[in-house]
Amino acid sequence: MLNAAFTRIGLSPIVEISERIRDVAPGWEARTGERFAYLQRGELADDTPAYITRAMEKAVAAGLTRYPKSGGEPWFKDAVLARLAANGLPGFAREHVLCTYGGQEGLQLVFNLFAGGRVVSFAPTWSCVLDNIAPYAGCELDPVALVERGGQLAIDFAQVEAKLPGAALLYVNSPQNPTGKVFSRDELSRLNDLCLRYGVRIVSDEAYEDFVFGGAKHVSMLAFPGEHIFGVFTCSKSYAATGFRLGYTVCRDADLIARMTLGEYTQTGGVVPFIQKAFAEAMTNEAERSAWLEPLLAKFARRRELIVERLGPVVGPGLYRPEGAFYFFLNLKGLVPEAPAGAAQGAFTLQRFLDAGVAIIPGTAFGGADYSHHVRVSFSGIEQAQLERALDRITTQVLNGARRAAG
Amino acid sequence: MLNAAFTRIGLSPIVEISERIRDVAPGWEARTGERFAYLQRGELADDTPAYITRAMEKAVAAGLTRYPKSGGEPWFKDAVLARLAANGLPGFAREHVLCTYGGQEGLQLVFNLFAGGRVVSFAPTWSCVLDNIAPYAGCELDPVALVERGGQLAIDFAQVEAKLPGAALLYVNSPQNPTGKVFSRDELSRLNDLCLRYGVRIVSDEAYEDFVFGGAKHVSMLAFPGEHIFGVFTCSKSYAATGFRLGYTVCRDADLIARMTLGEYTQTGGVVPFIQKAFAEAMTNEAERSAWLEPLLAKFARRRELIVERLGPVVGPGLYRPEGAFYFFLNLKGLVPEAPAGAAQGAFTLQRFLDAGVAIIPGTAFGGADYSHHVRVSFSGIEQAQLERALDRITTQVLNGARRAAG
Repeated sequence: MLNAAFTRIGLSPIVEISERIRDVAPGWEARTGERFAYLQRGELADDTPAYITRAMEKAVAAGLTRYPKSGGEPWFKDAVLARLAANGLPGFAREHVLCTYGGQEGLQLVFNLFAGGRVVSFAPTWSCVLDNIAPYAGCELDPVALVERGGQLAIDFAQVEAKLPGAALLYVNSPQNPTGKVFSRDELSRLNDLCLRYGVRIVSDEAYEDFVFGGAKHVSMLAFPGEHIFGVFTCSKSYAATGFRLGYTVCRDADLIARMTLGEYTQTGGVVPFIQKAFAEAMTNEAERSAWLEPLLAKFARRRELIVERLGPVVGPGLYRPEGAFYFFLNLKGLVPEAPAGAAQGAFTLQRFLDAGVAIIPGTAFGGADYSHHVRVSFSGIEQAQLERALDRITTQVLNGARRAAG
Repeated sequence: MLNAAFTRIGLSPIVEISERIRDVAPGWEARTGERFAYLQRGELADDTPAYITRAMEKAVAAGLTRYPKSGGEPWFKDAVLARLAANGLPGFAREHVLCTYGGQEGLQLVFNLFAGGRVVSFAPTWSCVLDNIAPYAGCELDPVALVERGGQLAIDFAQVEAKLPGAALLYVNSPQNPTGKVFSRDELSRLNDLCLRYGVRIVSDEAYEDFVFGGAKHVSMLAFPGEHIFGVFTCSKSYAATGFRLGYTVCRDADLIARMTLGEYTQTGGVVPFIQKAFAEAMTNEAERSAWLEPLLAKFARRRELIVERLGPVVGPGLYRPEGAFYFFLNLKGLVPEAPAGAAQGAFTLQRFLDAGVAIIPGTAFGGADYSHHVRVSFSGIEQAQLERALDRITTQVLNGARRAAG
């Protein structure tokens, strides 16, 4: 009998669309003489900083090519502790840290630790949690929709409170994928209080911790005391290093970290030691880190401004201005044609974008039919000049066309 | 409610002992002026061949640092297909191959695919399957003991046949850890026929495929036709690359490989692409591969001979001469003192070895009380001169002492 978990999971629509575009883009570029715009994936076009790859080469030369220590090398954990302390989170020890393959394995292990449990989340939600991580662990996601209130995405705390009793976990992701919402200290504090009241653990996905704009500030869930919080981190975004698959999970409950360590060891035999070494360097070399990150964030802020400037007037209230991460989650209801009866709106809108040489992710990927007129636009992997061309095509070929169709 | 799978698994005794020795060895060396002998782990002391690490550096420089394709890069799969063909296994396609973190993740995913099922295996068995992979998937291992028959470890086929009905999987490992038994083509063929008769799938762990001695020949289970066979491979042993965590699983059932691909993606987000590139090179560069492997195997054969020569006369029929892998599984019954009442024989014998500056793994790690007088001795990580010194200490301090105690 095959394990049903393997039939419940699917290929992430983001991965699926990325792989489909590999086939579509060359023809489109040949036809139009323009460059295809990749606004679908949460991945930087920038190269991994050279000081990190140099550190990795040195680690290989030094012979860090043997079996890793299960759960992570002591010096990797120390680098995590230094990073946490630099972010105002002192008081952790090695026994509170687990090294994983990406933040993804951290999330997968936390969900698996509470296999079969109910997980309260916010909608929209990162598709990989919806389609892979929750169903693989047999967890039921129970989403609370974020609500638009005065240009802000607000939390319906009454609904959260109604769902918490009996839940195993609350999944929080700030800055949030796909909306770019940065949860405020006050919001996180209220969520934490509710979880404490109902005995619910928190899994806090902080993949985008370094990506905040316009004065917004990332607050880690780990800033609140207690053993019930899992902070899940990745090196993928902050270091342009998606392919290195490095992440870590932090929790004050050393016993649960020990269990997850055994799970991680069972799954993979541990994380590649020379990659751990490269990011031990990345996380503690503050000079190199900020010399790289600061101009990057300035560049990203300009991209964000450009999108607001060009799409704001057209999309109107359907454009929520992200405070963090590197996504816009646009509501295009009324601005794109309605799909013919029987066709899926998301796929129909996606095709409209692809025809204009722009890859995006349909909103349905982040929470089903409620988001069938939404699209997620990532500005992580496109330079300013190309982004301008892409926005031109979106306004003239994708949205304008819609007005014609509607008018 | 915590997932019970995490309480069923334990830290592999091999890992545990290796980590314990890190503390013990320096003091012993300071006391005796000798070098501690690491005969506990299945890991080469040799460095990863330079052509492999150079290929990895080139891949990083070329920008193979982005998200991997789920299931493995096409060119990695092609390298696997080339390797299979070079081993006389043609007729496979990309859709039959999954790239994993070590052979370990391949095994873990196959077991998880049949979660909760009964798995027939041979005893003794690799401890990681016993303590981690099977219990994590909730699989019950149902072992058939290998029996000593005329200097050979023979299979009790009647017992295998009695256990197969209703089983989900047969776990085969050839060359076998810990005994070094190489299953003959005839033995594998008879096992395969039985599995076909009872509709049982086969998971074939071929981690030691390149390590065979004295004319023995490794035959892959994949040499037999059918969609019911999973071949699980690792680059850890053949390329002295345990820390790179690279492996692959091959099965003619493309649908099951597709499911496992989703599981692998969910767990880790895919395998580091520049590591895949390094081993695509390693697997297809026949000249470099054999220039490295042939002298290595000659060296290993000399180590094996030395152990037979020194321990054979003392251990007698308790020494099974391994045809493959790089382990001796010695039965020391009567040659080591009996543990005092209430103490565990395995731990007691281990301490005796550690006192002599030699790390081994007690046989209990590979199948419980049936092997309480056995020890596994690995010759993968020790040079000839040091091995001689270690064997001297074993014969004079560990085994001789036993005779005194017994006499």
